[in-house]
Parts: sequence; C-alpha cells; structure tokens
Amino acid sequence: MRPSGNLAAWAAHDCGSGSPPSVGPYPSDVERVKLADVARAAGVHSGTASRALNPATRDQVSRDTARRIVKTAERLGYVPNAQARALRTARSFLVAIVVPDITNPLFPPIVRGAERVLTDAGYTVLLTDTDNDLLRERRQIESLLGRGADGFIIATALWKDPLLEELASAGVPAVLANRNTSSGRWPYVGGDERVGIALAVDHLAELGHRQIVHLAGPQNSSTGRERAAAFRQAARSRGLGPSEARVRACSSYTEVAGEQSMTRLLASGTKFTAIVAGNDLIALGVMDVLERAGLRCPEDVSLVGFNDMPFVDKLNPPLTTVRLPLEQMGALAAQTLLSELDRSGISKLRSTSLLPVELVVRRSTAALEESGRR
Amino acid sequence: MRPSGNLAAWAAHDCGSGSPPSVGPYPSDVERVKLADVARAAGVHSGTASRALNPATRDQVSRDTARRIVKTAERLGYVPNAQARALRTARSFLVAIVVPDITNPLFPPIVRGAERVLTDAGYTVLLTDTDNDLLRERRQIESLLGRGADGFIIATALWKDPLLEELASAGVPAVLANRNTSSGRWPYVGGDERVGIALAVDHLAELGHRQIVHLAGPQNSSTGRERAAAFRQAARSRGLGPSEARVRACSSYTEVAGEQSMTRLLASGTKFTAIVAGNDLIALGVMDVLERAGLRCPEDVSLVGFNDMPFVDKLNPPLTTVRLPLEQMGALAAQTLLSELDRSGISKLRSTSLLPVELVVRRSTAALEESGRR
Repeated sequence: MRPSGNLAAWAAHDCGSGSPPSVGPYPSDVERVKLADVARAAGVHSGTASRALNPATRDQVSRDTARRIVKTAERLGYVPNAQARALRTARSFLVAIVVPDITNPLFPPIVRGAERVLTDAGYTVLLTDTDNDLLRERRQIESLLGRGADGFIIATALWKDPLLEELASAGVPAVLANRNTSSGRWPYVGGDERVGIALAVDHLAELGHRQIVHLAGPQNSSTGRERAAAFRQAARSRGLGPSEARVRACSSYTEVAGEQSMTRLLASGTKFTAIVAGNDLIALGVMDVLERAGLRCPEDVSLVGFNDMPFVDKLNPPLTTVRLPLEQMGALAAQTLLSELDRSGISKLRSTSLLPVELVVRRSTAALEESGRR
Repeated sequence: MRPSGNLAAWAAHDCGSGSPPSVGPYPSDVERVKLADVARAAGVHSGTASRALNPATRDQVSRDTARRIVKTAERLGYVPNAQARALRTARSFLVAIVVPDITNPLFPPIVRGAERVLTDAGYTVLLTDTDNDLLRERRQIESLLGRGADGFIIATALWKDPLLEELASAGVPAVLANRNTSSGRWPYVGGDERVGIALAVDHLAELGHRQIVHLAGPQNSSTGRERAAAFRQAARSRGLGPSEARVRACSSYTEVAGEQSMTRLLASGTKFTAIVAGNDLIALGVMDVLERAGLRCPEDVSLVGFNDMPFVDKLNPPLTTVRLPLEQMGALAAQTLLSELDRSGISKLRSTSLLPVELVVRRSTAALEESGRR
C-alpha cells in the first residue's frame, strides 16, 4: 500500500521547519498570568523563570530556586501559552498514544504512566483506540498526522507491520511500547519477556512439574513470539524434551481465544500438569474451561499468567503471574519519545529498554505431589 | 477563585467567530485523495459525496448511496482534510475526555464508547487523567482550552464543583458523564442510580435480609449522594427502619476506602447480614476485610456491588452487582456533546439522560436461611 494522504504529506515535509501550528481561536492575553509575572513574584529574572518552568532546562537552575518558581507559577495559575510556545518551537505539543483496546486492563496503566510524563512536560495527549482494526488504525494515524502530532507512542505494533514501516520511512517520531516489530527501526520499551517466562518455568519445575504446555499469545506479535521462544529455551535448559514442553498459539490475547485454545488442548489428549499462559486474559479463559471440565486449579492443573494486570489477585484462585511494571513502561516510553523529539534531525538511537519483571506467586500453582497427575 | 488564563480568555471570547485554528505544519495536498476523487469513483456529485461523508448530513442521502460513497472513500484512503474543514467551520475538531483515573476499570469502557462516536464524526480525542487532583484538573482543562478544544466530556464532576461552575459561566461546551453536579447547568448522561439501588435492596429483601448496611460512595459525588438517598428510600418502602438500614459513607471510590469503612463497621458492633456497596471497588475492599475477619461471603454476609465493572464475574465469589451500560454511556455523552456543538449559540437544552440498569445476580448474595445471622 503506498503512503496516502497525511502520511505522504509528512514524508514530503521538511521536518523541523514549516509553518508553526496555531492552537486555537481564542485570544490568549486576557487576564493571563505571564511569565514575567511569575518571575517578578518569585524575585528572579524572566530567563531563570523560563528555564525553571521548562522540564528540559530545569536542571540549569538550582533545585531550591526551581522549586520556588514552580510553586509561584502554580499559586498564580500560570499556564504556559501553548500558542506562543508553538510559534517559538514549531511544535504542536500534541503526542498521540495508540492502543489496541483501552478496555484491556493492560493498557490503562501504560497510558497513565505516559500521560503523566507528557503532561508534566507541557504536552497534550491524544488517545487513539484502534479496536484491533488495521484500517481504523491507519485512518486514525493519518488523521493525527494531519493535526500535526509531534510524535506517537504506539502499543499496537505487529511483528510485521507495514503501517509502522511507512511511518519509519517517513521519519515520524515514535516509540513502541509493550510490542516490538521485526524491523527494529523504532525505539522500544517493553518487559523482559525471556526472564519472565524463565521465572515461570523455573517455578513450575521446582514444584515438580515436567509436563508443561505454553498457550502462547498470537504469533503476529513480538510478545507472543518472544514468550514462546523463551518457553522453549527455558524448557530445554531444565532438561524438558519436546514431548514434555509443548507450545500452542492462541489467535489473540483474549479470554475467548484462551478458552478456544484450552478446549482444543483438552480434546487433543495431550498430557500436562501445568500451563504457562501467554498473558493473564488467556489464563482467564483457561480457568473457565478448567472449571467447566471439572478440573481444579491448582490441584489438577497449575496455571501461570503474564502481566499481573489489575484484579488477578482477586481471582479464584488468585493467579500466579509475571509482573510487568506497566506504569513505568508508559513513563519510560514517554521519556524516550521526549528525548527523540529534542534531537529531531540528529541521527537517532534505536534504543531498546527491557524493564525488569518478577514472578508473583499466588494460589494457582502448587507442587505436583498435591496434583491429580492427569 | 477567579477565572484565570485560558478560562478567562474563553469567557471573553465571542464563541463561533474568531480566527480558525490551523492544524499542523504539514502540506496537505501531496498525493492526497480529494473529495472529488471519491465522488468521481463513486459516480456521484461532490456535494452528494460531501453530504454522505459527513455524519451530520448523511441522512440527506439515500442509505445505499451513502454506504457506497463511504466504502469508496475507505477504499481510496480518503481522509477529510482537517485543516480545510477547520477553516470552513472555525472548529478545532478536538474533544477532550476528562477522567479521574483511567486505571479505574469503570472509565475505559466509557472512554471507548465516546471515542468511537467522536472519531467516526471526524473528531480527535484528547484524554486527560486528573489523578483525582483538583489543581491538576484545573491546569489541564486550562491547557486544553488554550489548544482550542471544541468541547469536553467530563467524568470527574463533584457535587459542588467550582471549576465546572466557571466553565459553565464561560459558555464552554461540555457534557457530564457518570457524575453530575448540584447546579444542573450541564447536560448529563449517567445510570439510573435509584432503580439500581432499589433492585439491589429488593433482591436482598426477597432473600430475607432485614439488617442491611449501605457502604456509600463519597458524598461529594452525585453518585454517592444519589445512591445513598435511593438506599434510604428503598429501605423505607420495604418497611425497614433506620436501625435496620444504615448508611456509612466511604471517603472515596477505592478498594482501600472500602476496607477502611468495612473495618470500622465491624468494630462498631452494628448488626447486619447484607451490604450494598457504593460501587464494585468498595465491594472488593469489603471482600478483603470479610476474608481476614473469617467471615464467609455469602454464607455470613451477602454483598452487592455497583457498576459491573470488568472481571467482577471472576471474583471469589463472583459479585452480584448493578450493571451500568458503560460503553453506551460514553457513546451517548459524545452524541449529546456533538449535538451541543451543532447548535452552539442557540439556547441549549440541559438534558439529563439516565441509562437503564439491571441487577446481575451472581454468588455473593444468598438467602438469609443459609446465613450465619451475625
């Protein structure tokens, strides 16, 4: 598909110059508290106040002075004039966060972490929910480019993602969160999938399990692929053979896909005593099928999830899972994007940040001695 | 607090005129698919294509023709030119959704419902998470006004809300979702709190419960107040006296506040066999305290939540609760805002839409015969 509309426009656009965006039809100097007012009230020069109020230059001012100026600005109700700032910097100060489904509990903490960093840096956040629809995603990103978004935090990446390739070629500033692409053309912030899966497999092996199935996430996502590869590797290093450690991929990261995959696993006659689910939503589907089949968790089957999304500690049984620091992931993605934006034009570092994970042991896993040995 | 900064600017602004916003620094006619291209490919006049592609005028075109034109536009990758449209209409086509905490599972479905309607109508959605911080909320709304946001969907309303009063006086278009204010100056879309609470009380009364406590939401929110009033009324109409039906307010809609309130209730020596929680998060806190106190739900205490937020069907026990149609609430709030925007200048209707609720009976409630009668 050729770049169309705003994407083509962006590609043709000389980044960093061009006419600056205006930000609204409202006069902006009626009763407005100005930078000079803040400086006067804080007893500093305007330049000092400006540096203290800009997170990017705040460290050029002593910490006590910066704190005093920020407090003064808050007390006076000072709001940086977005229009004036945009004129000065040729930025729109709009950043878009693109998620596949905001009702998936994985994403709100990521959005919150990113939003806080971006808002504190003076950006306004656009939220786009693609509803896992590629055409919708393309239209929405085109529309955001048309609005002059400065950059994107994208949590919808596919392993092979033509739209992201086009955006990369067009030089659009973006950071990928949670999911990466095969091309590695973007800065990426995610969890350490390999360590997470290794912790899960080690935990099950220490409990005596040797027949373990990985109900993997979709293989068109980096997380689905990385976790499956990590599972195979961890199983090998624990001395488990291919007949003991099996991988079956789910069609998506949903409860329904987990149910389907688990139903097929039961029908297949494969022997297993433990399951590593591709994520917590898949684990929820597994729990439903186990209950309907009259199998108890963890007495008959041990189960480990991935993500530690909100409320899995309240499930019956509370779910053992791999915890990702989701708010930090969002915050770091935002910080990475901000530093990308600060050096636009300069050759960009394709950084990859893997955040540390930990295994949270709850009651969905138990020693094999207690298990029913299917 | 006097209106400051952008809010004062808005108040001084002659709505509907003013210079139109520009939307970005990017040239917009490079390889762009134009309306004329869509019209030609669909075999209609440009005017017909324009009417079909604008949700506000689509019903002026026959349904089959409109569908054909929309499909053609999608096939060609037509993106309405936001800049041209803004010039024509003096709108920014930005709408902000303001939520108190996006990680509270109540809000993502509301955001999703609103976002879908707004995106389909050609708007871009700004998400603002105030983190339940009044100063942060004020700064963010000021900043969004500075960007020329066309309107707001606000899910953070307090019962007495000085900021919202200022916005109303300034004539800012907005719709309140989920929570209302005492002044009634805004269109409001929420759930039918009274019917929901009455269903909960009736359900418990039919199970034989007469000693029922309402752990109400915070009384600075309309939902907390309305549900508490509805509880008193429902209890009276069921013949329960003030010593049988008691109300205790929690400090916030959180699990922690629910825990605190439930701990105090147990310490108070009040007799009860059932609890109506102000919302599902409060119910979660109640469950934790019951478990720690060695009390079983529902055998010792029946428990009803409110909202039917995602995953409460997976709790142990699955929670009986009042279901609000959250996505529809968001969608209707968005539609209400769009019709507000379409008749700006005309006297506005302060509509109130209460969406129907239903009781979802799960396993956290049981007949008193089975209960331990505390």
